[in-house]
Amino acid sequence: MASRLPSMTLPTHAGIDLDLPPAARPGQSLAEVDTPSLILDLGVFERNVDRMQALADRAGIRLRPHAKAHKCPDIALAQMARGAVGICCQKASEALPFVRAGIADIHISNELAGPAKARILAALARHARISVCVDDARQVAALAQACAEAQVMVTVFVEIDVGQGRCGVTDADAALRLVEEIALHPGLRFGGLQAYHGGAQHRRSRVERREAAAQAAAKAGAVVARLQAAGMACEVVTGGGTGSVEFDLASGVYTEIQPGSYVFMDGDYGRNEWNPATGFGHSLFIASAVMSVAPPTRVVLDAGLKSMAVDSGLPLIKQPDGGALRYVAANDEHGIVECGEGTARPGLGEQLLLIPGHCDPTLNLYDELVGIRNGQVECVWPVAARGLSR
Amino acid sequence: MASRLPSMTLPTHAGIDLDLPPAARPGQSLAEVDTPSLILDLGVFERNVDRMQALADRAGIRLRPHAKAHKCPDIALAQMARGAVGICCQKASEALPFVRAGIADIHISNELAGPAKARILAALARHARISVCVDDARQVAALAQACAEAQVMVTVFVEIDVGQGRCGVTDADAALRLVEEIALHPGLRFGGLQAYHGGAQHRRSRVERREAAAQAAAKAGAVVARLQAAGMACEVVTGGGTGSVEFDLASGVYTEIQPGSYVFMDGDYGRNEWNPATGFGHSLFIASAVMSVAPPTRVVLDAGLKSMAVDSGLPLIKQPDGGALRYVAANDEHGIVECGEGTARPGLGEQLLLIPGHCDPTLNLYDELVGIRNGQVECVWPVAARGLSR
Repeated sequence: MASRLPSMTLPTHAGIDLDLPPAARPGQSLAEVDTPSLILDLGVFERNVDRMQALADRAGIRLRPHAKAHKCPDIALAQMARGAVGICCQKASEALPFVRAGIADIHISNELAGPAKARILAALARHARISVCVDDARQVAALAQACAEAQVMVTVFVEIDVGQGRCGVTDADAALRLVEEIALHPGLRFGGLQAYHGGAQHRRSRVERREAAAQAAAKAGAVVARLQAAGMACEVVTGGGTGSVEFDLASGVYTEIQPGSYVFMDGDYGRNEWNPATGFGHSLFIASAVMSVAPPTRVVLDAGLKSMAVDSGLPLIKQPDGGALRYVAANDEHGIVECGEGTARPGLGEQLLLIPGHCDPTLNLYDELVGIRNGQVECVWPVAARGLSR
Repeated sequence: MASRLPSMTLPTHAGIDLDLPPAARPGQSLAEVDTPSLILDLGVFERNVDRMQALADRAGIRLRPHAKAHKCPDIALAQMARGAVGICCQKASEALPFVRAGIADIHISNELAGPAKARILAALARHARISVCVDDARQVAALAQACAEAQVMVTVFVEIDVGQGRCGVTDADAALRLVEEIALHPGLRFGGLQAYHGGAQHRRSRVERREAAAQAAAKAGAVVARLQAAGMACEVVTGGGTGSVEFDLASGVYTEIQPGSYVFMDGDYGRNEWNPATGFGHSLFIASAVMSVAPPTRVVLDAGLKSMAVDSGLPLIKQPDGGALRYVAANDEHGIVECGEGTARPGLGEQLLLIPGHCDPTLNLYDELVGIRNGQVECVWPVAARGLSR
């Protein structure tokens, strides 16, 4: 029989005065940053932010960048300072640190699972303009109740499935019924349509992405027309991502785009074929150090599965053209690097920069993002929404 | 040209009084816990902890559970209360919350990359008995310097590669040279050998695991003999994991075992073939909720890549025998579930429990572990070492 332990209160060891030194301090060189650390090349990051804003401005389309990629209020403020109209979040709780940081317009580009989350949303709506998606009348009812209780107003978007087969109603009549449902509740305001095709973003060729984006826009356009015929204006059609942005901007359907990953890029997006005019640079790296050179032909890094998401592939190693270092296996806390012919084996303690395979879930592993300019630490930004998945 | 933004200090919005309600409160029912949340079935957990302690006690081998699996001081205290001699950590920083919680004996079962981490280790050694691994004389030198500066003593284990091809010296002579090197420094004390074969843990059949464990033990035994012949006693040989524990305990070589995952188990360990006497139960789940039933044949959960590690496979869904719900795709914040024939489609808002594919990196995504007994929340334990990877 199992011996049962009561729920414990941790003993306090008042005598223990012990803190970790910071991993990075402004003014340090990159080589002095402790590892593993998440690194942002500020020059590339700023060019990415500028370029996306310029593309949206030129097209006359509003840019509402997705904060689920970065979870970092400092980055959201940089995006707003360039002209973003607000941000997207993917969860109600994720929006909290952005509201605290003063972002006044936040769209939750997702449905909420249940009344507890609707109450979180309503609490946010006391402090910022908040919108959210629905694809079921019961979600509308839960939002209406939470808004009535909190005496706030929330804008509601009807999500339509434009090809991903995930959330969103699948036909225009169902969308129309939801718009009519929203109109019944004084605390809710119909905002328009959410039309995002996640699967389109990572198709490798531009032709494939253009086709998927065109189909998504056509579906969204048909629903807009159906609603207009019924006397319901769609003020906003929001959607699109980093991989489809050039097509979304030209679609004539989207009034607002939601790209997120463009600020960082990652190994997976790097494998896409890009139009040079809408290409973005890798600004995100993991600084890792060689912790063992004991294996005869490999070296072992101190960054593994707890320091990077590997769902979209293992990280690439930043190295001179033709360099043959390959990150070949991720254990929980170790990375195995093989050194191809003609490439010097990194030495014990040497710092390597990794490009993670997938930026969004990698950000979600770190509490801080270390901003680097000209080889020096310029800032350390909290990833304040890390872990906020409710 | 990129417009340069200065490093920003976030505006403070003193008027914003906004906190997330807790995801779980003691006394609530499991169904009331907000999602996604990490759930611990306390009954199964306690049986797992008891069983491993009983196995070690019966074999007369010391149990030093690995805290890299749980990162949770409350769990470490539960293990110590049953007879564990101390814990293992995998990183210097990871040990910090355990030292703060009063765990007095911590082995870092890994090499440290560089002097900054050696200084963290030396700081810990002011408050607890600390040991660490080396596989290179330069690591010994860095530790010696940090210990001299902090005026502390650290115990040093020589790691030997017993089959994984990761860290650790590959022959007995190299081990002997490191032991001699350790002996040169007054702040260092030779503790014995670290001999862990991570690759052996996840081989599916018992026969394969037995063979890999036997080879690991034979290699470790040969190094012990070589050191003894040179007059160097190996007080401790430490290693072994959940998958090989029955063989490690019977090896006659290990004096101490380091299993970690046995407290939780996971989808990947669940695919191993087990000796019933040394089998452990799944105690770890992710509570997730159905957020959309819009797709005609699927449902969408609110737990995706940011709520679970998928490196060792997608999660399983806890369901009655014969249930045909399958988690088929993880997006960043969504999980796609297909409902096989004869299994009712879960309803909007319904809570499902997932068994994650890999426990260690999944724990590293959560700040809290919600302990459940008889369907009720009994405790909420901080995952205090989450994110501590330096």
